[in-house]
Order: sequence, then structure tokens, then C-alpha cells
Amino acid sequence: MTYIDTLGQQAKVASRQIAKLSTAAKNDLLNQVAKALVAESDYIITENAKDMANASENGISKIMQDRLLLTEDRIAGIAEGVRQVADLQDPIGQVVRGYTNLDGLKIVQKRVPMGVIAMIFESRPNVSIDAFSLAFKTNNAIILRGGRDAINSNKALVTVARKALKNAGITADAVQFVEDTSHEVAEELMVATKYVDLLIPRGGARLIQTVKEKAKVPVIETGVGNCHIYVDKYANLDMATQIVINAKTQRPSVCNAAESLVVHADIVEEFLPNLEKAILKIQSVEFRADERALKLMEKAVPASPEDFATEFLDYIMSVKVVDSLDEAINWINTYTTSHSEAIVTQDISRAEQFQDDVDAAAVYVNASTRFTDGFVFGLGAEIGISTQKMHARGPMGLEALTSTKFYINGQGQIRE
Amino acid sequence: MTYIDTLGQQAKVASRQIAKLSTAAKNDLLNQVAKALVAESDYIITENAKDMANASENGISKIMQDRLLLTEDRIAGIAEGVRQVADLQDPIGQVVRGYTNLDGLKIVQKRVPMGVIAMIFESRPNVSIDAFSLAFKTNNAIILRGGRDAINSNKALVTVARKALKNAGITADAVQFVEDTSHEVAEELMVATKYVDLLIPRGGARLIQTVKEKAKVPVIETGVGNCHIYVDKYANLDMATQIVINAKTQRPSVCNAAESLVVHADIVEEFLPNLEKAILKIQSVEFRADERALKLMEKAVPASPEDFATEFLDYIMSVKVVDSLDEAINWINTYTTSHSEAIVTQDISRAEQFQDDVDAAAVYVNASTRFTDGFVFGLGAEIGISTQKMHARGPMGLEALTSTKFYINGQGQIRE
Repeated sequence: MTYIDTLGQQAKVASRQIAKLSTAAKNDLLNQVAKALVAESDYIITENAKDMANASENGISKIMQDRLLLTEDRIAGIAEGVRQVADLQDPIGQVVRGYTNLDGLKIVQKRVPMGVIAMIFESRPNVSIDAFSLAFKTNNAIILRGGRDAINSNKALVTVARKALKNAGITADAVQFVEDTSHEVAEELMVATKYVDLLIPRGGARLIQTVKEKAKVPVIETGVGNCHIYVDKYANLDMATQIVINAKTQRPSVCNAAESLVVHADIVEEFLPNLEKAILKIQSVEFRADERALKLMEKAVPASPEDFATEFLDYIMSVKVVDSLDEAINWINTYTTSHSEAIVTQDISRAEQFQDDVDAAAVYVNASTRFTDGFVFGLGAEIGISTQKMHARGPMGLEALTSTKFYINGQGQIRE
Repeated sequence: MTYIDTLGQQAKVASRQIAKLSTAAKNDLLNQVAKALVAESDYIITENAKDMANASENGISKIMQDRLLLTEDRIAGIAEGVRQVADLQDPIGQVVRGYTNLDGLKIVQKRVPMGVIAMIFESRPNVSIDAFSLAFKTNNAIILRGGRDAINSNKALVTVARKALKNAGITADAVQFVEDTSHEVAEELMVATKYVDLLIPRGGARLIQTVKEKAKVPVIETGVGNCHIYVDKYANLDMATQIVINAKTQRPSVCNAAESLVVHADIVEEFLPNLEKAILKIQSVEFRADERALKLMEKAVPASPEDFATEFLDYIMSVKVVDSLDEAINWINTYTTSHSEAIVTQDISRAEQFQDDVDAAAVYVNASTRFTDGFVFGLGAEIGISTQKMHARGPMGLEALTSTKFYINGQGQIRE
């Protein structure tokens, strides 16, 4: 029996044990976990310090180090997130459809747990607790496989959650942590069809690609965001400047940050030099521009073809000039990772065409792509942002972690 | 460029062309297709006759030959099905959620087409038109890969649909038929991630298994039904007899027919001999029984271990005796294909426990499993019955062929 077999079987058993926990019992436990996280802040910070020391030794970028860091405030924030999940409406048991049919059958479609959810994620350790709380709120067991960089932080956070489960008389295997961070074990998890009902990978393009290639279990792809801002010829250019600055620089390390700028030729001569001036006052951004844009920006460098397909997660942005809305839409549909895309325009029919024709989870008119987020979208919380079309698309809240089941009650009906 | 590349690219282009067809235009076209099917009955029946001749030559079972046969009545039935799809409410554009958030962003989640749907199916040729009509109603292009047995019938049906599309000025590539029925081409379709947004296999356990192993495109597993009837110790035994007879014999070739009988030990001595007598009056059924059941049935034969895991699709049924409800639930959860399962009992808490704990798409109390069907469940039509937990579970209607997209409209909002 392999390591993943053991974790998988334990998760399967746990998923059955917690399948019928009441809303009250689930919320109580989540509040206990929140309390325990704050109470154990010192322990968590000590463990996180080990990861931070390794990160610094390994020369990991400042942006990535910031994603890794846990402070008392951040732990309080994670705990607050758990309390917010406790406060969300419980989707389990919710009736999606219901009717009595012509045969007199009482047919009710209800939301039920998925069973066992697995998550493979990178860096940010808060993900482990966010994912556990959403999975537990939907009566699912979860297996967490975090990145090497955050191994000590993740272990500490999961240890606190498992202790709280045990203290509440609930099986600690409702959340399990994969301590072996080898690729082999991750790949075993991707094919564990006997145990895993849903796998959610959260991380960079390479992780998502590996999962797409190797997984045999049901997967929801998440989070790779080569997000574009298209500045149309009918844009309010001041608005466009503010949106580009925000989408590129406010938090470049996240998936809803913009990576690519597309500009209509008619306004490019006015827009690009002003944008460059405005952005460089705030933050040094490297623009990688096509030939036409290059001539208009003092500090831009030539873009390579790969730059247009790259999620930089850094202060870097590609720039492309187009001659029409159709060209912009085709360009974006060619390079999009189907996460978030935006148009800046004052023209209503061009805005509508862009929203209808761009194939992505979230399509914006006159707003920053940075808003794509479960809280902002009214889902209360999120376990990731789906970039695929099946099951869930865009920010995934509690519902994305549920399935449905038809309950049919008869009085002896047979089919004629 | 391979054959599938060609079909895939054509489908992708077609999917964009039909993405914004109005509800009225779609319904008109569907009604035209229905009319054309009836008008071209002779042609379709002539083509079907070739398949019937091959089937008879190849010694295909009577039950399977019946699935293959097209008559004037059956073609009229298929046409009527297309008209019913035209009459269904259009889910495309439907708002799933919508609100103005704290930032003043107007956020609307709408149903949108999937894009390109592929279907690999066996035998029954009506599936080709059912699938096309549901895909077209949801603005999706579809690639159909039918079985060798029905190749001429399928080609004829798709030809009629393509002609109707052309006559209406809509791209005929909204529906394409894979004329090469080799396994290699089917497997190419399973990995055509560039073109295929959703693959729905419909057929026997072997097809579904192959798709599960080989597919790289998003898949919804359908239709393998090792359905159980559990006769509880508190069952109304007359009701149980009628339900078993119906679920086993009314149409044994379909996925919601029962394959396995599970009986509580306390009533087995009374129930099984009477069931055997009653069923044999109507239809010769081969019972493959465990040791305890074998002693109580005159004509039963011993079950092999594989019998309990087999979808016979024939007048064959496995029989297992259990000592408790828990044993019945564990047994069923071990062998279920997660399609449809039933308990016959008058005890309300045992009924509830069975429905909650059995892990299947449709769980019945006191009714035949034969009711699992999109029409019966109020979906209007179905493209298959999902036995997986993601995206859609149980009978899949129009909604299962849609994705969603967030439309966000702002007035220059940036994230603080």
C-alpha cells in the first residue's frame, strides 16, 4: 500500500463519517479552529520562520517571500476567514429542484458533498486553511499537498486544525497533509481515482499543465491568469491609465493582475507615452512592446513572441497595438488563459461585443481585472478561480465543492 | 493535419458563428430539421436497412437489433423529440446570479455555450439527432462519432440535419459526423483539447472505461448502470415483486434497468420463491444467486464474483442476501456504478438512511429504477445520464451543455 493509498483510504472513511454532520456542528468546529489558530500564533510563526529562512537562503524573490510570510495579523486574518466561512449559508441539503411528476413520484434534487477533495497548491500557506474550511463546511474530507517552500507553515496550520477536530470528537482525517512533497507522490494523487472525487490544483502554469497531462481524477483547473486590458479607441484615456496602473501594479503576484496591454491604433500615440509617464511615477514597470508600441515608449524593450503568452506575476507587461476591435478580440482569444479580461471603452455596442465574444471566466467593461475574487463576486469566500468551463467557472465558492443527488420517493410506481 | 484536426477546426469556427444565434432562429431551425426528418423518412429507412442487414449477418442479439431499427413511427418520434427541444426554455443568456457590489460593479453571471461538444456513442441512431438538437439549442457545435453498427443510419440522419442548416443559411458544420469509425480516430477525438470543450461518451462499460483512461478533454461519464433493488425486511413484498419485475424486464437493454437484487435475510425465504414464480410467468429471467439465495430459487444458477459487478443489459439478474441495512448499503456502494439505486421498505428512517448513504445519481424509495430519465425528471429532454459528481449528475438536460461567464460593468473602478 502506497502512502497515497493510506491517505486516500483514511480520507474516504473520514468523508463518510463527516457526511452527515449538521450545520451547527460544522460551524462550531470552524469557530474552534479559528480560535485555535489565534491561540497558536506563536507556534505557527516559529514554523513559518523556518520556511522564511529557507526562502531567503534559496534566493526566492521578494514578492514570493511576501506571499510566504505569516505574521500575527495575517494569522488573525486567516482565522477571520474561517469564521466567515462558518457564517456562510450551508449549501448541503439545499433543494435545487423539486416536483411531483405525472407518475406521482416525489423528485427532489439536493446538494450533497463531493466526498474527498484533493488540492495541490504552491506557496501561500493560508490556502491550506481556506481550503480546509470550505471543504469542511460542505462535509468533504480534504487532502492537502502544499509546496516545498511552505512545508513547515502548512504542517503547522494543518496540525492546529486536526487538533481542533480531535478535541471536538470529529475524525482528524477530515483534513490530511501530504508530508512527502516529491513529484512522484503528487502524481500518485493525480491518479488516485479510487479515493479522490475532485482535484483542484492551485499554482503556476507549470503545475496546472502537469495536472492537465497526468490527472485521471476529475480536475478543476484554476488560476493561471494572462489577463489583458484592451484600451479601445473610444476609451476615456484617463480612466484607462488608472485601470492599467491598478491592474498591473497594485499586487502583481496574483492571478487577476494584468499581464498584457492591447491598445487601439487610433489612440495609441496619445495613450502610451502618457501611460508610461504616469506608471513610472509610481512603480518601475518593464514594458515588452511590439514594434509599433516600441516607438512610442521611451523605456520599453522589444517583446518576444512568448512574452504575449506569459503570466509574469511581476512588474512586467506586454504591449500590443491593434487596428480594430475584432483584432483585439481575436488576439485576446488566442492568448487568453480564460481568467479575466477587460475593455476600456465608452461605446456600448463595442463593450457588449467584447463581453460576448471574449472567451473567459470574467469579462470586464471599464474596471480593473483585480476584482475577480470570491468575496468581491458575492460568494463569501473562494477555493480558487476556475478557468475551465465545466462545473464551475470563475471564483469558486462553497457550491463548487458540492455535487447533487436526486431523491425519488414513490408508493410502488413502476414504468409502463 | 489529421482528420480530427479538420473536423475540430471546422467545429470551432462553427461554434463561434452560431454562438449568438437568437432563440427564435434556433427554434426555427430545429422545427425545420424535424420537418425534414419526416419528409426524408424513406431515405433514412433505406440507409437504416443496410445497418439492419449487417446486424443480422453479424449475429447481433435481438435486443440490440431492436435498438438499431428505424421505422416511420420511430423517425416521427425522433422528429417530435426535436420539436420538443425547440419548445424548451432557452437557457443561454439566463442570469444565474446578479448584483451590484460594494464597489458599484454590476456583476452578472450568465449561462453561455460550452463551445464544441463531442459525443462518442454506440448503437441507437436516434442519439445523433437528440444530441444535435440539444447542442444546437444551447448554441454549441457538435461532433458526433457513432458506432460502426449504425454508421449508415447515423450518416443519413446527420445529412438531413446538415441540409436543413444549409437551407437556413447556417453553417452545416454546427453538426459533423465522424465517418471514420476506427478506434484511432476516436482516441484522437478524446485528446483534441484544442477543439473540444466537452466530451460525452454514451455506451457500454468498455467505452466509458476507455474514455476515462485516454481522454484529455473534459468528460462527463454517462450511463453505465449496475442498478440495484434492495428489498428491506420492512418491505411490502407485493410491491417489491412488482418493482423488481418492472425494473428487470420492462426494457432490459437500457441503463436504468435493474441488474442486481439485494434481499434482507429476514424476508428472503418468503420473498424469493414468490418473486421467481411471478417473474417466470412473464419472462424467462436467469437469476445468478449467492449461496443463500440459490437454495430458495428453483432455476437460479450460482453467481460468479464478476456477476455482481456486471451490467447485463439482458434478462439476467444477480441476487445477494444481506443481514442488515448497513450491509446492503455497503454492498451497493461497493458495486454501484452510481447511476440509480432503489430500496423497497415501509420504514421511514431506513428509507432516509438508504437515500442519504447510497452514493448514486438517483436513489429511489418504493419505485422502479426505470424512471431515471430526463423527461420523467422534468428536464424536458436528456443528452445522457451522468454518473459522475462534477458539473451534472443524473439525467442531463440543456443546462448540462452550458457554462457560465461573469459580465462585470464598472465606471472606472480600481482595487484599493
